[in-house]
Amino acid sequence: MNTPTIPRRRGRPPKELAGYSETRESLLRAGVAVLTEKGFSSTGIEEILRNADVPKGSFYHFFASKEAFGLELIDRYAAYFAKKLDRILTNEKRSPLERLHDFVMDAEAGMRRYRFKRGCLVGNLGQEMGVLPEGYRERLREVFVDWEARTARCLLEARAAGEIPRKTDCASVAAFFWIGWEGAVLRAKLDGDPAALRTFANGFFATLK
Amino acid sequence: MNTPTIPRRRGRPPKELAGYSETRESLLRAGVAVLTEKGFSSTGIEEILRNADVPKGSFYHFFASKEAFGLELIDRYAAYFAKKLDRILTNEKRSPLERLHDFVMDAEAGMRRYRFKRGCLVGNLGQEMGVLPEGYRERLREVFVDWEARTARCLLEARAAGEIPRKTDCASVAAFFWIGWEGAVLRAKLDGDPAALRTFANGFFATLK
Repeated sequence: MNTPTIPRRRGRPPKELAGYSETRESLLRAGVAVLTEKGFSSTGIEEILRNADVPKGSFYHFFASKEAFGLELIDRYAAYFAKKLDRILTNEKRSPLERLHDFVMDAEAGMRRYRFKRGCLVGNLGQEMGVLPEGYRERLREVFVDWEARTARCLLEARAAGEIPRKTDCASVAAFFWIGWEGAVLRAKLDGDPAALRTFANGFFATLK
Repeated sequence: MNTPTIPRRRGRPPKELAGYSETRESLLRAGVAVLTEKGFSSTGIEEILRNADVPKGSFYHFFASKEAFGLELIDRYAAYFAKKLDRILTNEKRSPLERLHDFVMDAEAGMRRYRFKRGCLVGNLGQEMGVLPEGYRERLREVFVDWEARTARCLLEARAAGEIPRKTDCASVAAFFWIGWEGAVLRAKLDGDPAALRTFANGFFATLK
């Protein structure tokens, strides 16, 4: 949910490989930051270039269009987030239900890091769908489906471990979680504090008893 | 949640009273329609004027700025929505819990009317807070607090009637509902169908047992 802080690469600058360059990386990094805080339609390429400290004119060297750039930002955010979910939701040191709590805590810490100004890139773009390229819709939906599937697997483990009732419909509960959680992130941004994240998480975990 | 269809006034056009005119009304009506579908920052005054079929130049005759116009749209949407909630959540012909179900059904019907392209003006603006005038934040929060309070009162009635457990914390449940419901509206817009509204509502009502 919160914004990826993609670590800057250390050491010698890498060679300019096909499709990869430091400039391209900077642009993607700046794009994710801007899109989690603001939106796509209100963000100009100029602002991203400025934030990335990249000269004008470079953008179209790396990306065919703002639309293509946006799709890559979704892919990048999805990959970052899948990795985070994997790390937290398959952590063998914690029980499956504890892992879900860990995710919620991690998300709150992530939002706090940016003073609750940055939300979820996928949720933000979903809200803007009315003015976005129609091709984004399917991609954004796929990302939610992926997050739901990962969450459902963790819930299945929790059910197998007896942490939640045997009759729990894990797929439905996972879908319910992501629908509501995006609402919570939205509200935490509006409030500028974590109350909504906690209210939703508390309510959610209470339903699992 | 869904968009108000503010009925056009019938009969003779009213006199131009202080602060009221048909043109002004048209602008507000067009503004609400555009803002529930798109966002504030991506919407130009020109588009609203075009939708309202109002000549350029009229806008600043009625509103000091786009910012002032936006605040009036929030007030208008809040008033419309308060009336709707009153009508549904205090309907004596239905039990308190039935009224909450009625609200959910009404919201789905409202979104369907606009083919799931329009969401909630307050939720949309909340998501855009990063680029909106800071003065909007408090007003948007107040609207949520109002909706929560109305919902909590209905839940208290449901509790008194024995429809939900005696230990239910009605204020928390109402807050939980609105956090998640805004997420559901967002997702229904992205999906272009009511599945998320139903998934969330089913999960929510299950928690009340």
